[in-house]
Amino acid sequence: MTSPKHTDFTETTISSKTVYRGNLLHVLEDEVQLPDGARSWREYVRHPGAVMMVPFLDRDTVLLVRQFRYPLGRHFLELPAGKIDRGEEPIATARRELREECGYAAGSWDHLATFHPCVGYSDERIELYLARELAEAGSAPDDGEFIETRPTALAQALAWVRDGTITDAKTVIGLLWADRFRDW
Amino acid sequence: MTSPKHTDFTETTISSKTVYRGNLLHVLEDEVQLPDGARSWREYVRHPGAVMMVPFLDRDTVLLVRQFRYPLGRHFLELPAGKIDRGEEPIATARRELREECGYAAGSWDHLATFHPCVGYSDERIELYLARELAEAGSAPDDGEFIETRPTALAQALAWVRDGTITDAKTVIGLLWADRFRDW
Repeated sequence: MTSPKHTDFTETTISSKTVYRGNLLHVLEDEVQLPDGARSWREYVRHPGAVMMVPFLDRDTVLLVRQFRYPLGRHFLELPAGKIDRGEEPIATARRELREECGYAAGSWDHLATFHPCVGYSDERIELYLARELAEAGSAPDDGEFIETRPTALAQALAWVRDGTITDAKTVIGLLWADRFRDW
Repeated sequence: MTSPKHTDFTETTISSKTVYRGNLLHVLEDEVQLPDGARSWREYVRHPGAVMMVPFLDRDTVLLVRQFRYPLGRHFLELPAGKIDRGEEPIATARRELREECGYAAGSWDHLATFHPCVGYSDERIELYLARELAEAGSAPDDGEFIETRPTALAQALAWVRDGTITDAKTVIGLLWADRFRDW
């Protein structure tokens, strides 16, 4: 049943066209050549990338945010995150989002990992950071950011992953990662 | 810094229009009313939902698949997954994908969790299953499925999560979940 290792399944671009360009989403339709020479089409979203972070208020407490997510029509508990602005360094995005969404600055930042949330139809990547030594920094959130911060015991957050209270994939990853691979 | 609990940040739909409908993606642009009464726009993808599974070949070995993901332009190591066909029960999708992608049938299925991979711009949900008691079932993969199966020790797969070899978010979740919450 096992195939030879590292077979090359590369699909090459024949042509590419934008089929929708909004303020957030850029959707493309490409004609591609499959590994066997056949032709097919791929529809996908081009995304600027995002950051997320696990902000530790103390050794056992993380900072979650609660907000409404329109595509799903309900509120979600999430780790703080945000899109990378054009030309912005991901670590700068992380610092900005922690301040804007939560009103905190972190004295210590570590890059933990890179993830791809939606490989089937988006090129989005998410850079995951660990943020520690938090200190309040200004008022949060900004006008028009309808969001509230929720300091939460890591053990409680993990219980909420298991029982389905937390279902946002990036948040599940951040919490399980911090729990499994913690070396700080 | 902490806001009152359970503030209602619901955004209500004023109008909704389809801006792109491909074979896979359905993109909408909605005008919404924000909690403070202001108006804004939301761009998002409507998705039929998907399943993924952690298939255990034995207590310590999972079945991964390797395939090319066009939006990212490279191959990925992933847990088996697939989109739910219209009217299909998610467990039926899981059985079908395990057979089509990997050539296996499972004697034991358990639903573990539901995730939302992309809450910012997609309504996709992923149903996560545990598949055990695997037996070979027919030849795999189907024509036009350019994919190879990779039996992998769970410990190795977790090491690949940590070192960045595995970055697909659903796969990271499935592996960390099986490791953290295993009760079988």
